[in-house]
Amino acid sequence: MYVIMVYDVNQKRVAKVLNIARKYLEWIQNSVLEGELTEAKFERLKREVELVIDEEEDSVIFYIMRTIKYSERQILGIEKNKREQIL
Amino acid sequence: MYVIMVYDVNQKRVAKVLNIARKYLEWIQNSVLEGELTEAKFERLKREVELVIDEEEDSVIFYIMRTIKYSERQILGIEKNKREQIL
Repeated sequence: MYVIMVYDVNQKRVAKVLNIARKYLEWIQNSVLEGELTEAKFERLKREVELVIDEEEDSVIFYIMRTIKYSERQILGIEKNKREQIL
Repeated sequence: MYVIMVYDVNQKRVAKVLNIARKYLEWIQNSVLEGELTEAKFERLKREVELVIDEEEDSVIFYIMRTIKYSERQILGIEKNKREQIL
């Protein structure tokens, strides 16, 4: 499954969340990571993130696409992470 | 089509980009908006955003889903915009 992760967390927790997320997904731009994950890896990512965020203040959203057949990505401006285009 | 917009723009242009985006999509969290758009409205949104960003410095990504049948959204922490759950 293809996962897009966007996060809006307190500045003092950004580094922790980003370090965890980068183990599983590719950094795309500020607060946005993407990548192909197995169900098991996705569960591990969520558990690790849950341990470092403040559930009362921070927000982390995962958009999960079972198939990318019906999805595409369009960019205006620069692509902050020049990468092989999956989506 | 369902559109997720994420933006990483210079602080001095954030308000302009957000004001434009809010005419078309719903604010979800910092730098993230979502919503159902027609092709025509999506084109207008892109043109308006193009006029205010600096294409050499800013990055705006649109994830377009022709159908949301194969997609879902999961949230950790708080939902910064309590809204009716479409995705």
